[in-house]
Amino acid sequence: MKKDSWLFGGVTVLVLGLGLIIGYGFKPSVQPSSVVVKSIPDGSLDPAVWGKYYPDQYASYLTNAEMKQGNSKYGGSHKFDRLERDPMLKILYGGYGFALDYTKPRGHVFSIEDILETERKKPSASCWTCKGPEVPGVIAEMGDSYYTSTFDSLKDKMHYSVSCADCHDPKTMALTITRPAFLEGLEDQGKDPNNLTRQEMRSAVCGQCHVSYYFEPETNKVIFPWENGLKVEQMLKYENDKNFSDWIMPDTQTPMAKVRHPEYEMFSTGVHAANGVACADCHMPYVKQGQSKMSSHHWESPLNTVSQSCQTCHKQSEEFLTDQVIDRQDKVFDTQMIAEKAIVGAIEALTKATNDPKADPKLLEEARQLHRDASFNWDFVASENSMGFHNPTEALRVLGEAINLGHQATQKATQAMSHVQ
Amino acid sequence: MKKDSWLFGGVTVLVLGLGLIIGYGFKPSVQPSSVVVKSIPDGSLDPAVWGKYYPDQYASYLTNAEMKQGNSKYGGSHKFDRLERDPMLKILYGGYGFALDYTKPRGHVFSIEDILETERKKPSASCWTCKGPEVPGVIAEMGDSYYTSTFDSLKDKMHYSVSCADCHDPKTMALTITRPAFLEGLEDQGKDPNNLTRQEMRSAVCGQCHVSYYFEPETNKVIFPWENGLKVEQMLKYENDKNFSDWIMPDTQTPMAKVRHPEYEMFSTGVHAANGVACADCHMPYVKQGQSKMSSHHWESPLNTVSQSCQTCHKQSEEFLTDQVIDRQDKVFDTQMIAEKAIVGAIEALTKATNDPKADPKLLEEARQLHRDASFNWDFVASENSMGFHNPTEALRVLGEAINLGHQATQKATQAMSHVQ
Repeated sequence: MKKDSWLFGGVTVLVLGLGLIIGYGFKPSVQPSSVVVKSIPDGSLDPAVWGKYYPDQYASYLTNAEMKQGNSKYGGSHKFDRLERDPMLKILYGGYGFALDYTKPRGHVFSIEDILETERKKPSASCWTCKGPEVPGVIAEMGDSYYTSTFDSLKDKMHYSVSCADCHDPKTMALTITRPAFLEGLEDQGKDPNNLTRQEMRSAVCGQCHVSYYFEPETNKVIFPWENGLKVEQMLKYENDKNFSDWIMPDTQTPMAKVRHPEYEMFSTGVHAANGVACADCHMPYVKQGQSKMSSHHWESPLNTVSQSCQTCHKQSEEFLTDQVIDRQDKVFDTQMIAEKAIVGAIEALTKATNDPKADPKLLEEARQLHRDASFNWDFVASENSMGFHNPTEALRVLGEAINLGHQATQKATQAMSHVQ
Repeated sequence: MKKDSWLFGGVTVLVLGLGLIIGYGFKPSVQPSSVVVKSIPDGSLDPAVWGKYYPDQYASYLTNAEMKQGNSKYGGSHKFDRLERDPMLKILYGGYGFALDYTKPRGHVFSIEDILETERKKPSASCWTCKGPEVPGVIAEMGDSYYTSTFDSLKDKMHYSVSCADCHDPKTMALTITRPAFLEGLEDQGKDPNNLTRQEMRSAVCGQCHVSYYFEPETNKVIFPWENGLKVEQMLKYENDKNFSDWIMPDTQTPMAKVRHPEYEMFSTGVHAANGVACADCHMPYVKQGQSKMSSHHWESPLNTVSQSCQTCHKQSEEFLTDQVIDRQDKVFDTQMIAEKAIVGAIEALTKATNDPKADPKLLEEARQLHRDASFNWDFVASENSMGFHNPTEALRVLGEAINLGHQATQKATQAMSHVQ
């Protein structure tokens, strides 16, 4: 993260309780301090500049450089090779970048470093969209030509990883949505982005990036497939209706659709969201930092902050609460593995059928559709960063569907071969 | 329910807070009245006699004669034909009594009437075991010959449906375990039945009957398959290791194992149990009845008593809480239907393979094992009375397994046929 562009400008001082940034009904154990809102000098996107005015928030933010397993069983803030941990992924993403390099990224402060390191192909500048606070300005300046530019051509414009200005208005510190795709996604659902509650905003700023998306063919624009709703079958129907595919799996010739980290979608339909809990309630709990009592800006697994994240509402012991989370995650993990085996089986059967010149082409097409749909359902859970905890019953329901569709694909592919024998 | 045998005897008076019958940490909104414990005259098992001493509890008990859908979406206290509602059950239980008559039974006061009405075959007197308070005395008197007697031969001994003496000591009103199989089941898990907490007893008395069981071959004794534990895979392993089967499915020749209403098992591994909640907390909430504040003795869906059953702990609105329950049940129902279709598919494939003289016998055996295991997993959810709500993530996990095994059975049966072609 570079620290140039130290700009200073007019400072507007407003007395405003940081409590306004919260607005949720439950009582945090640590009460926020009153803070003086300071405007950031015009144009500065450098978190270090923001840090001059908000040293405690900035100090908290810098802890995102930590790389550790922590108390998380399935995640952590360190890099690890997902393909090595789960070799079935190489088959499940066969022919796509994720089969070549699927390294778990690190914290927000590494967003630029991590994308520069990945061996996955970056088809366009669209891949910059969530990597730092300079992107919205570049999009505003370039218009739609941003999305069709090459990734490398915009490299020199990107200096700062995900940071302050991605979520905060530099004048008022109010939470603000900076990504066009999220605004469009809200509109697709009939929601007015200017009329979100404080608590909705405390999830929305995360939802700008922690969502699934696709690049629209021709324009390469980042689009959230939310027109029918945020449930997996609604997103799949949207992509199916558009005949959209991210890639063709070489061995099976299946037109595949990739799901990408749908944390916002998964969380939105769960019991925490139904109770008005926002992402920030668990991932940005109140902490003491320096002289401030403030929302943590260290985004990590709430398993590392159970007392601040969970016990605000749940009065059981830390050990009990952790066990409950791990219980749900273990169930999701076990069921995800079953789904993966089922879909790997489908890929094997489809590969065989694809190589069989006598296979019935109509049945083969049906088998490919089943494979695509199974994979989309599975991926909705597999690529979601919570091992299902953001909504355990939804994760398990969706995996049940994935298992079913995966086996149906196998059976259809087998039928395609026997049909003509 | 007959009301003869009105016996009166010595009455021991003890002043004892009904609160002792509760012992759970949360504060009920209705506080129990202090009650005078009255012993029931020796030998009386007639609930009407108990009712003379406990008129309010008895009045509450008599409301179990209600037959209604109530607020339950998937259950209710009325009779309905499960086979008509879900015709796949006729295939899934093919060749067994449940494919002929699977009427949902009514409340506890109808236990004798309902078992006399069912068209399912009653293989022995063991079928009386949970039908009323006279059974423990008959078992004590007859010893193991009880279990090998015919059902009809003991009909004249059974006058009262499930009632007071099934759960209460007639002298002290203390909760008491009256069924030998449950005592043995606890011992199988290394638990001392005499050393259960008050709160454990408030589930244990229900768990005497709301469990899965099988009739031991030769002795016909009622046994709970709990030696390995209460999870479905542990119960299945137990029955597989014993090569136990309830019936052979005629069309597929699969040796089948039936699961029977495993409410206690499903609930035991869930979040409510982990929090120390007992069956009675939700199904017997505190209510005002006549002059008493007491635990309701009207066993029904807590969806009919959300304010008393749920809001004691959960402070959200009745509508919100009901929606959450229905959300979990809808997910389980949808996934259960997927599992049923998968297993019906397996039965079709296995039937075909069984009729194919050229089918590979070893693969056919493997397919039957998969079918048996799939069915056991599915049945663990399907025959459990809560549409999964007693433990939604466990229900969905188990159904995921059932879907997988069902499809594997289909594939193996198909393979058994193609193997020799």
